[in-house]
Amino acid sequence: MKLIAYAQGDTVGIGELAASGDVIFPVRAAGIDPADGIRSMVELASSGESLPRGDRESPIQLSAVRVRAPLPRPRRNIFCVGKNYFDHAEEFARSGFDSSAASGAIPEAPIIFSKVPECVIADGEEVVFDPAVTQAVDYEAELAVIIGRGGRGIRKEDAMEHVWGYTIINDVTARDLQGRHKQWLIGKSLDTFCPMGPVAVTADELDLDNARVRCWVNDELRQDASVPQLIFDIPTLIAAISAGITLYPGDVIATGTPAGVGIGFDPPRYLQSGDAVMVEIDGIGRLSNTFRSTQEITEAV
Amino acid sequence: MKLIAYAQGDTVGIGELAASGDVIFPVRAAGIDPADGIRSMVELASSGESLPRGDRESPIQLSAVRVRAPLPRPRRNIFCVGKNYFDHAEEFARSGFDSSAASGAIPEAPIIFSKVPECVIADGEEVVFDPAVTQAVDYEAELAVIIGRGGRGIRKEDAMEHVWGYTIINDVTARDLQGRHKQWLIGKSLDTFCPMGPVAVTADELDLDNARVRCWVNDELRQDASVPQLIFDIPTLIAAISAGITLYPGDVIATGTPAGVGIGFDPPRYLQSGDAVMVEIDGIGRLSNTFRSTQEITEAV
Repeated sequence: MKLIAYAQGDTVGIGELAASGDVIFPVRAAGIDPADGIRSMVELASSGESLPRGDRESPIQLSAVRVRAPLPRPRRNIFCVGKNYFDHAEEFARSGFDSSAASGAIPEAPIIFSKVPECVIADGEEVVFDPAVTQAVDYEAELAVIIGRGGRGIRKEDAMEHVWGYTIINDVTARDLQGRHKQWLIGKSLDTFCPMGPVAVTADELDLDNARVRCWVNDELRQDASVPQLIFDIPTLIAAISAGITLYPGDVIATGTPAGVGIGFDPPRYLQSGDAVMVEIDGIGRLSNTFRSTQEITEAV
Repeated sequence: MKLIAYAQGDTVGIGELAASGDVIFPVRAAGIDPADGIRSMVELASSGESLPRGDRESPIQLSAVRVRAPLPRPRRNIFCVGKNYFDHAEEFARSGFDSSAASGAIPEAPIIFSKVPECVIADGEEVVFDPAVTQAVDYEAELAVIIGRGGRGIRKEDAMEHVWGYTIINDVTARDLQGRHKQWLIGKSLDTFCPMGPVAVTADELDLDNARVRCWVNDELRQDASVPQLIFDIPTLIAAISAGITLYPGDVIATGTPAGVGIGFDPPRYLQSGDAVMVEIDGIGRLSNTFRSTQEITEAV
């Protein structure tokens, strides 16, 4: 099942995406509140209920709604994984911005940090950066796991039962701030720095063994890897985080980005105002956002 | 004004602490909802309203209520500052657990990480650790800032106008996980690893220039410093975080811990099951929590 959170005027809703991809069927059922995007669907499913389907009798053209992020304000900071593809771990360790590089390029345990919930934006919204704050804006295409049933001490062999589904995240990063502040929270959490969606899929929709993560900057393919190339796979990540931290329905884990980010180039290719970044994951969809500097916005006024 | 969030049976409330320290006056007013502790008071104040006072006519003995954390579930992860006192920065860099040590003991910019909101516990509640998850539990006494009026791009000279008040946090840390995972989120966020409170004070109550932060483990004084010894002071922290990240009323910033934590000793003195840790900050109060291993809990059953 593919879901889209949307708004039409002042009304918000959840829609099931038709196979055609251009129509949604509104999901309306007891216990479903679209205020927080799909969160109530995730909570319903995590309590063992089967998900209500969209109403085939009242289709809505996707072009007639404004798409929201599947989880416009996650319930707490998003869990993110650093250096979780081999080639990317190497390129980042070489970049000079990696405060953990002294202990080697390839991590021995998952590197987990967070992004604040309020930096989430939807497909099509602009990532806005202030050149007075950062001059090194970079993209990171990522598969994001949405936790269904919560728990602590989740074993690797049980972990996939706790996955409600997946979405796409662009883990936008201010490299200069990431390096300067050593811990990555600030460099990862600037306002608008977490494009998410547009589609969230239930776990059964995604063929993890063959899912490919790709990212284009202005039509140039920059990142291209497949999910099985993760250094720490999804069960390992869930087990590592939940060992001592209780996970809750609606928690989001961004699983890390493949090689090909801007700081992987020499010289680095940071994003410029007007650049368009598109992330595609097979079986989920495409997430597209344009980057805009506040300088350009000010000049345009 | 000193505030305490409390529960009596199924009823929650906010109380103004009397000067005697053993009586609270319940605060009941339009717009005040004690479900989230003092959060509605902070939001009210941040909208420019003056805070309602406690009702002198109906005093409650503090001993008759269960104290809650001032913000039992902060609105998002707590912002925390690493290595923000010179002597502590030195002791931590020497410890072998500091993934940022390669760039020097004293940070050139604030090191900002986070703790999940759900690890907050109240004064008197037990910090519970599982020896299968961590064998290196440590204390960190800290002054925590509670943000009032939010904003982005807050200038240092205006920053104190955005401080609603203060409370005490014990930034409990699993040193082994902090080192192993490089980024500190996991090692800092284990369930129950954030004792907070019991008192939250409005900004006018605290004499920052003379406030002393002290910490005892089983009556042995381990940490003793004063707030002016912070490497990055409160205005600098607020300016650094808010440069690109919008701050909101009720956000919490734990300002860092002084020297004297367990890993500062050789060999390290980690907390053992049964240890009692008390943090005191002049003008705020005392935060006391006992540490308990799950092993001992299991054996006792």
